[in-house]
Amino acid sequence: MATQHLEGGRQAAIREPVVEVLDEMACLSLIAGGGVGRIGYTGRFGPAVLPVNYDLHGGTIVFRTGVDSAMAADLCTGIADAEYSVAFEIDQIQPATQEGWSVLVQGSVHHVDSEAEQASLLRAGVVAWPDGQREHFIRITPTRITGRRISARVTGGS
Amino acid sequence: MATQHLEGGRQAAIREPVVEVLDEMACLSLIAGGGVGRIGYTGRFGPAVLPVNYDLHGGTIVFRTGVDSAMAADLCTGIADAEYSVAFEIDQIQPATQEGWSVLVQGSVHHVDSEAEQASLLRAGVVAWPDGQREHFIRITPTRITGRRISARVTGGS
Repeated sequence: MATQHLEGGRQAAIREPVVEVLDEMACLSLIAGGGVGRIGYTGRFGPAVLPVNYDLHGGTIVFRTGVDSAMAADLCTGIADAEYSVAFEIDQIQPATQEGWSVLVQGSVHHVDSEAEQASLLRAGVVAWPDGQREHFIRITPTRITGRRISARVTGGS
Repeated sequence: MATQHLEGGRQAAIREPVVEVLDEMACLSLIAGGGVGRIGYTGRFGPAVLPVNYDLHGGTIVFRTGVDSAMAADLCTGIADAEYSVAFEIDQIQPATQEGWSVLVQGSVHHVDSEAEQASLLRAGVVAWPDGQREHFIRITPTRITGRRISARVTGGS
């Protein structure tokens, strides 16, 4: 339904949301600048979603967390070479109009343990957030990237 | 480390993030206004996080989705009275300063099937987003609510 009946028989214009599915290239281009994203994983209390500051680095999502953080512990399988599956979501949505986009990266978590790999990320300027000493790098290698853009089509009105 | 050495021996002021843990009442007060939140769950492709428009209604998170959406299907256990565990995250973070807050609600998903319950939510004005025909109500009853506020302490500088 695109119109809303007002008193007196007039109809108001209605903003109808239009969803456009984004391909992988469009998604990567939207998230290339880094910033705040949200990691979704299954932790000690079930599913969890937490905001982190990320960078896109060589097609992977990279962020830092405290070595002894609950999240870092939750993301360890305890089995060598077995990697945890996680989700990483980035969006930019205007609260007033609810227009914007969201991207969902699904992939496996890799703990950056080697000094060479850590040094490469530090050189790339991957920044920590949100508290002081954050020495543990986590990298998510995407296996699936999906996204959508939501805009409003204004219809009706008389 | 709170200062950064500049050329010539001067030190620049550094913004050091300070994390404050929020109690349940503070979290509920921050998310009471509704808006955009992000649901985290395990779907057909593993962990997923998607933005939805929510309302807080009687201490529960409520949102609408399409009856035949992939998310609605993923959130069905297929077992009567067995409810799915999910995460729901809400945040407000300034991209420039990275100051703000985030709240994580963990709980179980309840599909609002009865007409009486649906009518009560419609009367409360729970709005749909992001596309047209969204008739399926989902309610998350919190079992755990945690949050944190991140502010910056500026230190150093000479």
